[in-house]
Amino acid sequence: MEAPGVTRAVIIGVGSELLTPERLDTNSLFLSRALNELGVEVRYKVVVGDDSEDLSRALRAAMSHAPIIMVTGGLGPTDDDITRATIASVFESPLVEHATVSASIRSQFESRGLRMPTINRRQALIPQGAVVLPNANGTAPGMWIEQSGVVCVALPGPPRELERMFDESVRARLVSLRSGEVGYGVYRRVLRVSGRTESHVEEAVYPVYSRWRRAPVPIATSILASLGQIELHLSTRCRTADEAARVLDGATTELAGVLGIDLVSTDGARLEDVVGELLLQRGRRVAVAESCTGGLITSRLTDVPGSSAYVHAGWVVYSNDAKVALLGVDPAAITEHGAVSEAVATQLATGARDRAGVDYGLGVTGIAGPDGGSADRPVGTVYAALAGPGQLVHVRRLSLPGERERVKFQASQAALDLLRRTLLR
Amino acid sequence: MEAPGVTRAVIIGVGSELLTPERLDTNSLFLSRALNELGVEVRYKVVVGDDSEDLSRALRAAMSHAPIIMVTGGLGPTDDDITRATIASVFESPLVEHATVSASIRSQFESRGLRMPTINRRQALIPQGAVVLPNANGTAPGMWIEQSGVVCVALPGPPRELERMFDESVRARLVSLRSGEVGYGVYRRVLRVSGRTESHVEEAVYPVYSRWRRAPVPIATSILASLGQIELHLSTRCRTADEAARVLDGATTELAGVLGIDLVSTDGARLEDVVGELLLQRGRRVAVAESCTGGLITSRLTDVPGSSAYVHAGWVVYSNDAKVALLGVDPAAITEHGAVSEAVATQLATGARDRAGVDYGLGVTGIAGPDGGSADRPVGTVYAALAGPGQLVHVRRLSLPGERERVKFQASQAALDLLRRTLLR
Repeated sequence: MEAPGVTRAVIIGVGSELLTPERLDTNSLFLSRALNELGVEVRYKVVVGDDSEDLSRALRAAMSHAPIIMVTGGLGPTDDDITRATIASVFESPLVEHATVSASIRSQFESRGLRMPTINRRQALIPQGAVVLPNANGTAPGMWIEQSGVVCVALPGPPRELERMFDESVRARLVSLRSGEVGYGVYRRVLRVSGRTESHVEEAVYPVYSRWRRAPVPIATSILASLGQIELHLSTRCRTADEAARVLDGATTELAGVLGIDLVSTDGARLEDVVGELLLQRGRRVAVAESCTGGLITSRLTDVPGSSAYVHAGWVVYSNDAKVALLGVDPAAITEHGAVSEAVATQLATGARDRAGVDYGLGVTGIAGPDGGSADRPVGTVYAALAGPGQLVHVRRLSLPGERERVKFQASQAALDLLRRTLLR
Repeated sequence: MEAPGVTRAVIIGVGSELLTPERLDTNSLFLSRALNELGVEVRYKVVVGDDSEDLSRALRAAMSHAPIIMVTGGLGPTDDDITRATIASVFESPLVEHATVSASIRSQFESRGLRMPTINRRQALIPQGAVVLPNANGTAPGMWIEQSGVVCVALPGPPRELERMFDESVRARLVSLRSGEVGYGVYRRVLRVSGRTESHVEEAVYPVYSRWRRAPVPIATSILASLGQIELHLSTRCRTADEAARVLDGATTELAGVLGIDLVSTDGARLEDVVGELLLQRGRRVAVAESCTGGLITSRLTDVPGSSAYVHAGWVVYSNDAKVALLGVDPAAITEHGAVSEAVATQLATGARDRAGVDYGLGVTGIAGPDGGSADRPVGTVYAALAGPGQLVHVRRLSLPGERERVKFQASQAALDLLRRTLLR
């Protein structure tokens, strides 16, 4: 049983690498979200290799089962990029070279001081009658081809090329294609939660969301655990964005009541975005002294545009000598308590705060592994300390699962969350 | 044209949640690896929703294109679990209840002190003639059904149920199925390349790899561009791992001749792994002073296990004051040339080297965006400097495309590559 106004699409990913054990077709996630927002549901997804016969078959099958076909990948300049020629053959439209496209590709190379390799001319070949979709982030143009009630859109494989092309050239075309229909859209919201396990989030929110399923405008909920945080995904089908906003605002308010300070964001913002916004609002600055996280915390803080307003300096102090020389950690504290200890984490935090002359200092020391663990401090043991204005110090001892990079990320998550909670108090 | 002994499989994932923007069919990665090890290649992959019609069509298409079909998911006890009934209908084998399976499901519930919900009896329904595959980690059994030269295997969706079932009941059956054939396996190798665009790598290596397609043991090649580097994936089908190693070693040597110092690794190692290994071999250490990369370079270096041998200290110096105070950058150089300049990058590199008392210093300064660009220094302008022993200094000016996090990553890539090339000289 389908809701009114539902159009369905098929997504076809092209590329032999997507059939290996190393790669997944992640572009389909972006496209599913973008299509859902337009009220278009994904009927099914296919991944084929660089094989013209398999792509032809997938295209022909899709044409008889959905009015919209999104093809991603296989638009590169090399021999194994088969999408252009296969679409031309299935839609019986011969490829023609677009002079403006070749000129644009050539000038992209020239602006980087490079000669255009001859093979890139292939990217200017477009099936007759297709609309060329400009690629602001790369050389391969996309294409939009309509025939007998079916629209086939081919987009390049690299996500930043595909996403920008969709935003600039595809979304509006899909909207106008569907302008005669009743417009239902699927609207989603992502909430991030810290400091609880997946099951504890589920326990807390189940009584709330189970009611939503039977509401006049139902809301679907799913809980996803990712590294160091839980995500709650809400989605609902509404006629207008305003109506969806009202429904989802109400739902978010209910969840906020249940989750309290553990609710990090209600608009999909990352922890580093939330911390940055709080620092900006309060006119505070932070400096970080990192041992086991090796620069990751400062790197995450500086992923946020405008972070230079609240991050001025940071230190990576991997060796004991560096901890002493650069941040004034007391060598006796290292001898007595060990480099991975509450005392050293605290001195790293106060050292960072005082040497940078800022309001907050974070200090993190731990054992990321795979070596260096002991019976009382196994791999994954991390101390995260926050030194605030005056005498304020908070320290957490963490026991983090997983291998090196997972320990680093979860430690950075815990340190940033400590700062977030302190700023909110 | 297929190599001898090639068997191909189709993977079908079942579940409407796999068509939302939140989920990918990750089971296909496990299955691809397991099948490849048995010499079975994945021809294509499909994801369908909980829709019997779509699953029927996918099954029928797969039956005419591959002798092995792996279906995952849709074996649960609820109404929308359609895999059992759909397979029974496509293979024209009526469902029959297996008393031993019902008894086993009932006892699983009872051992947890629970009554078996009636709906779970559905999971004991198996198409006539199919082999039941026991599920050691859950209630849903799998099934193996053979008909007219096609094998269809249905496995439960939860990864720990699926993986254990494959290991315990499917692998050996696939091996004996193919015992009449010579056992071929698929072997892969990943090469990483820096300092060339995708098209320029293609131009250089095409004359080499185009010959391999027609070699007695053919090698398939694909070229993938990812952020700041190019990957070459080689794969070949051989009878033994030794034979594959000989073939791929020969191929790798040929490519190394063409690519020279631009070849970063031939075993899939990341740039930070390669740089770490070179530092270890030569007994050298490095320190990094980072402005626009914000700690990312040091974080990547310390992602490598054992990196504490060559990373002792690092600095993030976002503000001009921090550059002067922590690394001794001359304020006059900032006034005269600007913070984003060859002079400041060089002083950051020598400052890091000298203050850490190590052999190499890297200094990176640039404009990551979105703000801060100017006509002569637009967003993406980055200077990366390396100071080595004695008077050795190398500086690169880069113009990097993309938004903030991409500029950061590419800048870190360029700085690490500068160190790699210098260590190799």
